Amino acid sequence: MGLIFCLEKTSRDTRARLGKLVTSHGEVSTPVFMPVGTQGTVKAVTPDELTDIGFRLILANMYHLYLRPGPEVIREAGGLHRFMNWPGSILTDSGGYQVFSLSPLRDIVEDGVTFRSHLDGSTHFLTPEKVVETQEALGADIIMPLDECVPYPCEREYVQAAAERTIRWAQRCREAKSREDQALFGIVQGGVYLDLRVKNAQDLVGVGFDGYAVGGLSVGEPAELMYQVLEETVPVLPKDQPRYLMGVGTPDHLIEGVLRGIDMFDCVFPTRVARNGTALTWQGKVVVRNAAFARDFAPLDSECRCYTCSNFSRAYLRHLFKAREILGPRLVTIHNLYFLFELMKKIREAIRMDCLESFRREFYRRYYGTENYPK
Amino acid sequence: MGLIFCLEKTSRDTRARLGKLVTSHGEVSTPVFMPVGTQGTVKAVTPDELTDIGFRLILANMYHLYLRPGPEVIREAGGLHRFMNWPGSILTDSGGYQVFSLSPLRDIVEDGVTFRSHLDGSTHFLTPEKVVETQEALGADIIMPLDECVPYPCEREYVQAAAERTIRWAQRCREAKSREDQALFGIVQGGVYLDLRVKNAQDLVGVGFDGYAVGGLSVGEPAELMYQVLEETVPVLPKDQPRYLMGVGTPDHLIEGVLRGIDMFDCVFPTRVARNGTALTWQGKVVVRNAAFARDFAPLDSECRCYTCSNFSRAYLRHLFKAREILGPRLVTIHNLYFLFELMKKIREAIRMDCLESFRREFYRRYYGTENYPK
Repeated sequence: MGLIFCLEKTSRDTRARLGKLVTSHGEVSTPVFMPVGTQGTVKAVTPDELTDIGFRLILANMYHLYLRPGPEVIREAGGLHRFMNWPGSILTDSGGYQVFSLSPLRDIVEDGVTFRSHLDGSTHFLTPEKVVETQEALGADIIMPLDECVPYPCEREYVQAAAERTIRWAQRCREAKSREDQALFGIVQGGVYLDLRVKNAQDLVGVGFDGYAVGGLSVGEPAELMYQVLEETVPVLPKDQPRYLMGVGTPDHLIEGVLRGIDMFDCVFPTRVARNGTALTWQGKVVVRNAAFARDFAPLDSECRCYTCSNFSRAYLRHLFKAREILGPRLVTIHNLYFLFELMKKIREAIRMDCLESFRREFYRRYYGTENYPK
Repeated sequence: MGLIFCLEKTSRDTRARLGKLVTSHGEVSTPVFMPVGTQGTVKAVTPDELTDIGFRLILANMYHLYLRPGPEVIREAGGLHRFMNWPGSILTDSGGYQVFSLSPLRDIVEDGVTFRSHLDGSTHFLTPEKVVETQEALGADIIMPLDECVPYPCEREYVQAAAERTIRWAQRCREAKSREDQALFGIVQGGVYLDLRVKNAQDLVGVGFDGYAVGGLSVGEPAELMYQVLEETVPVLPKDQPRYLMGVGTPDHLIEGVLRGIDMFDCVFPTRVARNGTALTWQGKVVVRNAAFARDFAPLDSECRCYTCSNFSRAYLRHLFKAREILGPRLVTIHNLYFLFELMKKIREAIRMDCLESFRREFYRRYYGTENYPK
């Protein structure tokens, strides 16, 4: 097996846990946030800038890399790590979510899914076996099975059928898998129907995977429903294996996810808002173009020790965004990724010190300006 | 005075020279190429990336910074060096060329020039005194006087009037200048009329400046005319002061300029073509999107030791450009700037070894694939 997970601690009062993921590309402390390198590059930054911040595990999208440059190019390059020159670990998403969110057409049958490329309209057919084969060509440390992601809201009957198909597809993925150095996770589906989630998680655990993802969340449902799903689903998952909440990455969702037993997260949130000029600070979001910053020569966040805050002022960053200079998105991306890395580090420290709930209270007060947070 | 120029060597067989420029922000070996940071950032790269390559002197545009963010913001920031966090030296262009090339309206009278902002259409009036005042607010190490840049072709009578006005404006700039830590260059104009160029250079030297620029070239005239202008103009300029050929930066023009006695150059060429996916290599230009590179896992240039060539393949760079990822322009910008830095280093070595003409022959053969070069 290509993945070792060491559970180091479980909180006394919550489900939060500390752990280590070990792949052939190194060690990662959990809970961990994975930056998203959709097309084989975390947008606007180099691999070096990611390792300088502290990241050792990133996500890439099979769907995008399958369409461009294609798995054969990456296989010939010696795998995705070498292609993009990333020395750390990689998790590749299976494409289930992208087929659901990006393709102008999709047709799901038992054997697999037909979809149209969002790039050129060409038609493709993905099966569970093809998804494993493609991810074996890419060579990520952790790979995901083909799943069917349903929208919110969605009728119970359809959700149930999709969740059951997801199990059958996951089983086929497990059978198709041939590389020993890659770990395969299962993906729990079931929408916001708590009993379907529980059943789906049980069935998936019955098949047996190297880790378990909770998918199909953060697709428009109220946060409270997402938290409920986690509260019901996570206890079904094996304690000694990693749990991954897919597509989640705002600070509140990260904290709430950790409190509910999640070990891994990924989201485009920090990098996407950075390119639009929104910086995350310990005092909340900052809109870099804000006219108030025209002559503000302080850093984005006076507490932050990232490269951007160590070297550049709000006034300069505002100028870069007003002038549409590439350096603007670059510098705010570095800052936002650093912020989320630090947030996860503080979360891990708080778990270690058994004070995650007081950390949460303080964080919500400063970042969101509220004393209210989910029960 | 804010500038020391040490002439270290003049070639036996050509006018090429080796020197050192010393400002309060450090020392620069000449002949030197200055990357262009139009809006207070060399597009797509950080100051650190520039110093890592070896650059110690860059150019910024007064015209752009005057319009946005405005000189007062930069003065309050503590000057342009601090605003953009650039530890090296800066030369600011006066805006004469930008008024000529960017403004949708310009009206030149003896007192100065009225122009419309290319950003918002607002009307501005720049005088020689205002140009000095603005550049004193920016605080560059070397500043340029307001000049009138004429197009090519252009009637002799108009060229002469513009060149004479440029002298009077330069004199007013000299009188307006109040900071002792900034050097002021004169700009020779006169189009492609050799006698006008000579007269203009003589008059400018009569006024007396800290260095001399040759302006109004590389505006569409045949290269041979540019070389002729240099051959006639440069001998008029004082040997013990730096000579700067404005807006020039293709490899052939750099080599030919050095052979004709030029010490300093600037151009957007390497950074602009990089963003369009053209890389400069010792074997000539390379179009990164070229389909032939789809499975080419070699670096852009096997001789190059830049960050990009040390870490990424042609296939990956092609993928980044096809996928419109910011990292593509970033990495090719670094490569192209490194290439021009290395070219200037090789040129300096060749001058030191008295072999610049054989270097030129070899360079033209490999880069341009020709045995022909200007006499």
